[in-house]
Amino acid sequence: MLKGRHLIEPEDFTKEELDEIFALANSIIENPDMYLHSCDGKLLATLFYEPSTRTRFSFESAMLRLGGNVVGFSEPGSSSVMKGESIADTIRTVGSYTDIIAMRHPKEGAPKLASMYSPIPIINAGDGGHQHPTQTLTDLLTIQNIKGNFSNLTIGLCGDLKFGRTVHSLIKALSRYENNSFILISPQELRIPPYIKNVLDDKNIKYIEVEKLEDIIGDLDILYMTRVQKERFFNEADYIRLKDSYILDYEKMKLAKEDLTVLHPLPRVNEISYEVDNDPRACYFRQVKFGMYVRMALILKLLGVE
Amino acid sequence: MLKGRHLIEPEDFTKEELDEIFALANSIIENPDMYLHSCDGKLLATLFYEPSTRTRFSFESAMLRLGGNVVGFSEPGSSSVMKGESIADTIRTVGSYTDIIAMRHPKEGAPKLASMYSPIPIINAGDGGHQHPTQTLTDLLTIQNIKGNFSNLTIGLCGDLKFGRTVHSLIKALSRYENNSFILISPQELRIPPYIKNVLDDKNIKYIEVEKLEDIIGDLDILYMTRVQKERFFNEADYIRLKDSYILDYEKMKLAKEDLTVLHPLPRVNEISYEVDNDPRACYFRQVKFGMYVRMALILKLLGVE
Amino acid sequence: MLKGRHLIEPEDFTKEELDEIFALANSIIENPDMYLHSCDGKLLATLFYEPSTRTRFSFESAMLRLGGNVVGFSEPGSSSVMKGESIADTIRTVGSYTDIIAMRHPKEGAPKLASMYSPIPIINAGDGGHQHPTQTLTDLLTIQNIKGNFSNLTIGLCGDLKFGRTVHSLIKALSRYENNSFILISPQELRIPPYIKNVLDDKNIKYIEVEKLEDIIGDLDILYMTRVQKERFFNEADYIRLKDSYILDYEKMKLAKEDLTVLHPLPRVNEISYEVDNDPRACYFRQVKFGMYVRMALILKLLGVE
Repeated sequence: MLKGRHLIEPEDFTKEELDEIFALANSIIENPDMYLHSCDGKLLATLFYEPSTRTRFSFESAMLRLGGNVVGFSEPGSSSVMKGESIADTIRTVGSYTDIIAMRHPKEGAPKLASMYSPIPIINAGDGGHQHPTQTLTDLLTIQNIKGNFSNLTIGLCGDLKFGRTVHSLIKALSRYENNSFILISPQELRIPPYIKNVLDDKNIKYIEVEKLEDIIGDLDILYMTRVQKERFFNEADYIRLKDSYILDYEKMKLAKEDLTVLHPLPRVNEISYEVDNDPRACYFRQVKFGMYVRMALILKLLGVE
Repeated sequence: MLKGRHLIEPEDFTKEELDEIFALANSIIENPDMYLHSCDGKLLATLFYEPSTRTRFSFESAMLRLGGNVVGFSEPGSSSVMKGESIADTIRTVGSYTDIIAMRHPKEGAPKLASMYSPIPIINAGDGGHQHPTQTLTDLLTIQNIKGNFSNLTIGLCGDLKFGRTVHSLIKALSRYENNSFILISPQELRIPPYIKNVLDDKNIKYIEVEKLEDIIGDLDILYMTRVQKERFFNEADYIRLKDSYILDYEKMKLAKEDLTVLHPLPRVNEISYEVDNDPRACYFRQVKFGMYVRMALILKLLGVE
Repeated sequence: MLKGRHLIEPEDFTKEELDEIFALANSIIENPDMYLHSCDGKLLATLFYEPSTRTRFSFESAMLRLGGNVVGFSEPGSSSVMKGESIADTIRTVGSYTDIIAMRHPKEGAPKLASMYSPIPIINAGDGGHQHPTQTLTDLLTIQNIKGNFSNLTIGLCGDLKFGRTVHSLIKALSRYENNSFILISPQELRIPPYIKNVLDDKNIKYIEVEKLEDIIGDLDILYMTRVQKERFFNEADYIRLKDSYILDYEKMKLAKEDLTVLHPLPRVNEISYEVDNDPRACYFRQVKFGMYVRMALILKLLGVE
């Protein structure tokens, strides 16, 4: 039963609950018109204590496409007035006006705190470097739609695997399913943290760590790209030696399987060349659209509207 | 007849007109679904020349819950373009697009000026330290719902009674009804101004002025709390001697009547301890919700929609 | 066929296509209620990379009055996140969430670039000093409604004719119709640029250039006012000699025809005296309203909804 629940971390929902959400998302994708008035008279509050235009647009579009409506702020400026008071008071106030809240906050744990005082469901829309659970839902719905299921996949994750929160959540989520293996592609400095390896080891899930994308791209069913920032490298020499290995371009795509699925949480800087955009295996813009649909399903489930 | 009128000051409406608004608000509270499409196709403009997120949310939620919609700005930044032109021109422009305007402005009198040029109703959503009439409507609807009427009440107002505009408006509003008396609780420096005392004296309404909340809390039917800022005190010694008398806590609540109603216009800083929040006599979050309902009724009345 | 098209420059549409838009706008003006749900379930994105509150309000009101809804940003602040990525990526993302985009950008050509990557129609809502095509549509619909047609008119354009983009577009647009003539009223420094004169010369359209409004106001059917900024003058003496000639006041209106139509793209500073506002020939606030209606028609046409 998802009605009235919060979504603070990706692990908050069981596999079965996720299945419910994905099933509803797929129903929306097939018959969007059927859901055009599902949220008539309902209000979403978008409380963005730091700007994140793309995430805000995704939530707001989701609610509006369900017939609901939105109040919110997107700026440090307009939120400043409410910063003077406690999060508890703000949430109880906003919870008096609206039916569900999507909250983005620069501080880790703020949405969790909010959920403790909220009379209505809270969705964590990103808290600092901590969690961004609707990105994980987006990634999963995309994989399910393109691959048909979440099992028997070889998933490559490439780039900054140390600090990238979406990568950690995706690995944990996919490790719940059968017979997946992971290829972790990063420089030494940015390898996946031990606590994620522990998750994989505990479940006897196969993974290898490699340094260069070009060496293993041919093995992958899914390639999840993220950005590598120069500042993260320990020394200039390593950076120069390796930087091109974390840029997906036409040449590397030639080495990949016919049915590779390339994903990226966006925004990208230069880690995927523009020449790749027109390759049918480039799925990151389709992923954006799945992000809206999965948020539609999530809102419906948490509101208990169907 | 409220259709087409402006609301600039709380006194703009007669008692009978207020009764009409409260009756409609109560009907909305009982059957919100009946009003879900009352404002279909109508637009509210929220012109917030200074940020006030909570007031803006209340107006926008009110309009959206009536099926109407909203255009607006909430930031000095986005309003700057319109600041270059006269308020008269801005209002005639916005009045060409929308059906009703809620205006917040740092300058006293700006909404009044706007109303002189506006082809559509203007609601003052706060102008500097001057007026905030929908807060007064909120306070009154809350009292009516919780106390059943506006008469035979002993009302305590506590804190900064000198500069607090909501306090002045509430006293004037309640002095229109039968057999109320006031207990004015404040430091010397922040006593109620003479022009309010004159209103009370002219109507032979009983009031006393006291310094400490704990001395008289047991006599009150309603306690309206406001914040006391340290900077308002003339000297440090007074501040230290008195500051705890303006903080409502568990100990003071023990001295109060069983059916005391505690109100606060919010946001609070520390003048009501968090431990009081769960006391059933703490009504300030219910007050927030009444604020939305009374704005719904007000919008319907000024638009002449029912 | 306008469905799926972009509007980047006023010349993007043929006369016949403009006629279609104006016919629809007039139908909306006559029966606004018929269009109250035309855009149910459709979303407009307002991407304002620089603030322009009045243009944004016009677009948003237009979409909301059609039953559609809006996501957007209006501030450099909230758009900054998306500035980090290419316009191509932003547009493909926003195009995944919404159905049509109105884009304002300080850089010339940005909406054009956006249209090259967009899966959905882009409307240029102003790009730097370059184009502002919906202002031209507004001007034309206003003239058609007040004058009945676009032909046999003597049109005066007054003020800064050198830098005023709306003036250039309006001259080009009206030069497509029969038997119009232009009187170009400006100081030497701010005369119409040669490329516009070439357009007129090529079509054998009559025009004269004069320095003082008062000398020719009596000949005009339409007077299109714009602001003259002091900084544009070469020398102080000229400015002092001429400045009053570019201010439309009661005295000059006495010299004008009974059926003169005074237009202004707004906002005005002091180039039209407030005393003129109540003259029935002052049509600039009616023009504002026509701006909303023409945008409603434009949105419907580009979406292919009717």
